[in-house]
Amino acid sequence: MVLRLDTRSGDFEAAFREFLGGKREASADVGETVSAILEDVRSRGDEAVIEYTRRFDRLELTPDTLRVSAAEIDEAVSKIDRDLYDALAVAADRIGAFHGRQLPEGFCYTDNAGVRLGQRWTPVSAAGLYVPGGTASYPSSVLMNAIPARVAGVGRVVMVVPSPDGVINPLVLLAARMAGVDEVYRIGGAQAVGALAYGTQTIAPVDKIVGPGNAWVAAAKRQVFGTVGIDMIAGPSEILIVADRLNNPDWIAIDLLSQAEHDEAAQSILITDDAAFAAEVEKALEARLGLLTRGDMARRSWERHGAIILVEDLLRDAPSLVDRVAPEHLELAVAEPDALLERVHHAGAIFLGRYTPEAIGDYIAGPNHVLPTSRTARFSSGLGVLDFMKRTTIVGCSADALKCIAAPAARLAHAEGLQAHGLSIETRLDDSAR
Amino acid sequence: MVLRLDTRSGDFEAAFREFLGGKREASADVGETVSAILEDVRSRGDEAVIEYTRRFDRLELTPDTLRVSAAEIDEAVSKIDRDLYDALAVAADRIGAFHGRQLPEGFCYTDNAGVRLGQRWTPVSAAGLYVPGGTASYPSSVLMNAIPARVAGVGRVVMVVPSPDGVINPLVLLAARMAGVDEVYRIGGAQAVGALAYGTQTIAPVDKIVGPGNAWVAAAKRQVFGTVGIDMIAGPSEILIVADRLNNPDWIAIDLLSQAEHDEAAQSILITDDAAFAAEVEKALEARLGLLTRGDMARRSWERHGAIILVEDLLRDAPSLVDRVAPEHLELAVAEPDALLERVHHAGAIFLGRYTPEAIGDYIAGPNHVLPTSRTARFSSGLGVLDFMKRTTIVGCSADALKCIAAPAARLAHAEGLQAHGLSIETRLDDSAR
Repeated sequence: MVLRLDTRSGDFEAAFREFLGGKREASADVGETVSAILEDVRSRGDEAVIEYTRRFDRLELTPDTLRVSAAEIDEAVSKIDRDLYDALAVAADRIGAFHGRQLPEGFCYTDNAGVRLGQRWTPVSAAGLYVPGGTASYPSSVLMNAIPARVAGVGRVVMVVPSPDGVINPLVLLAARMAGVDEVYRIGGAQAVGALAYGTQTIAPVDKIVGPGNAWVAAAKRQVFGTVGIDMIAGPSEILIVADRLNNPDWIAIDLLSQAEHDEAAQSILITDDAAFAAEVEKALEARLGLLTRGDMARRSWERHGAIILVEDLLRDAPSLVDRVAPEHLELAVAEPDALLERVHHAGAIFLGRYTPEAIGDYIAGPNHVLPTSRTARFSSGLGVLDFMKRTTIVGCSADALKCIAAPAARLAHAEGLQAHGLSIETRLDDSAR
Repeated sequence: MVLRLDTRSGDFEAAFREFLGGKREASADVGETVSAILEDVRSRGDEAVIEYTRRFDRLELTPDTLRVSAAEIDEAVSKIDRDLYDALAVAADRIGAFHGRQLPEGFCYTDNAGVRLGQRWTPVSAAGLYVPGGTASYPSSVLMNAIPARVAGVGRVVMVVPSPDGVINPLVLLAARMAGVDEVYRIGGAQAVGALAYGTQTIAPVDKIVGPGNAWVAAAKRQVFGTVGIDMIAGPSEILIVADRLNNPDWIAIDLLSQAEHDEAAQSILITDDAAFAAEVEKALEARLGLLTRGDMARRSWERHGAIILVEDLLRDAPSLVDRVAPEHLELAVAEPDALLERVHHAGAIFLGRYTPEAIGDYIAGPNHVLPTSRTARFSSGLGVLDFMKRTTIVGCSADALKCIAAPAARLAHAEGLQAHGLSIETRLDDSAR
């Protein structure tokens, strides 16, 4: 039985708080193991990476075969079904077009005091993309992580993907090629993160590491943070659907299940103003569950973490609940979603109307599918071009401009007890440049 | 003796690498202590905060006196010297004006397929600012942390500042008032970070915590990250000055010392193309050192971590060295700094020409003085308005638009083994909305 909440019931606030506070994932404590692997990769480089790959991926590599060659990529790509090739190409184009709009502009101006002021955006020099192996080796994630880096102007984009027993998903290699990845290495786990962060004899270090991974990868990213930048550490996926009774209940049911099928820690929530519609959705969901290949997983997710929340008035009641959940994905399945859109503040990505299933955003709409989970949309954003760039501020004073603003600056410096700070300003007023 | 390097010497590369890799700060391992404090604040709220404040700050508080009242702020502010008041007001104005230019714009468009696409920026709901107590209680930092939050449109800005033995710097309270801080609490340490992250009976939780602090505060910020957003964990300050022989050596010397006086882990580096000029700077620096109130500290920083790097040609050789250091502060003390500016990629803030001492940026120029340290300018930025905002992407399909892009999306979903993802798209093509 899925959790049901009703805003009109007296204990709603307490029950909703408990629901919000619920933990969906036990975090494995692998910090020490990871720390030892990272240290080993840092000190021994390729040799350590090759040893861990032998142990964890049952694969024998040499420094020469760490990298997936262009010929191997050609070979893998040549066998890909034409329709799939084209589908990935459409996705890459659309993702590139959307992310192109995210390119920021700097500014530069001279103010009344004659001070030249500005802000400049520049890309990081090199980015590393972690791609999981096995069943979670998603070509769509390669596009979503690599294209923003390329659009940002990152000089060198490197991908690591574990190849257990020598197997790599050919679609992942195709996606890497389409997204313009420069180097692909067949390594994974904490050892691959270490290689990207510290560099080895064969792999030059990068400045930023992005991409999803298991507990070892997540722990490794946390530990190398500071040496390199990292993206967020993603938690299990979520969807919140705000739907009125005029939706096809089967559509809403399958949307809820499209999150639930990811992972049993995933979470699907429906907010509606109609109890009969909610019951119809549940019925449709049951019917669908039996037919899904990942139905058992989806059922566990739905029954453990799902919820149906009944409200009196969608427009009045839903936005504040949405903001408290701050969902990764938000569907506004109503005829006029803009009124709700304006009232909602915290969500990773929003899908408008009855014909925008969340999954369209996972693949092809254009925006990124790497989004903040676990209520972090309150303060963080999906992956984008800005994650591969940084700002530098610029100040330029002429002798006259400095005179204009020197006195208050020096006064504050001395008030803070920082004498040399004050003197560095004052001495330029009294003396000559040479 | 300060380290001297010369790009023309055979061992330069090895020596420069060693210099770059040098650690300047031992990080205290306070993780477990902090973890216990956070857990205690999380479960006991005000009571725990009050107990830790009694123990660490020798101050007896009640839930009613946790907050600094408006009357207390009035009283403290009323005694502040008029010149200092005015200086802080000028700083607040200029910082506000610069940060106003950082406000981002979203976008919204409909593409060829008829898909509505957009990106919206919204502020976080509540931000918490940590301000250290004692000698590092800087009013300028209050402005630099609180003003970007205000400009971003953050609804509630909260400040915590420890008050050991009951003492708070009145200038810090004035800065909080000028910057529009809504609530000030006289608490500090890990307990204050815990109160901001989890909330207590008296203090509502925030969504993002920013501001500098000691090892306990830094560890607490790391640990609450995920529950709330945090800014970077700042390391010791740095300056790199690129200067030709046409500078007044005393000006360059005092600029180097203005970083060195912060902290013995601070780092000051001079890159010049003239050995005689370098010697003059060193001589001027020695002369200044003896006169500074913080001269002992500055000397330790300079002798342990400072460096003079001689190059043959500033324009040709300096930029790549600068990028490898990726300094927090970069002064380009030459007559025509723009040529260097164009060639440099990684620096937190850049100061142009002979009349722009770094200290002018610490107080009054306008850009933020919270900047990336320890080579992290390769991938991160100074504090700004964007740190208090987040992006939400928006997708809207009509029935026709969905038809246009459905096929490749569903194909990719099925190729990734995510059947419900595919079905959520396909079912909308076959069936009717209700």
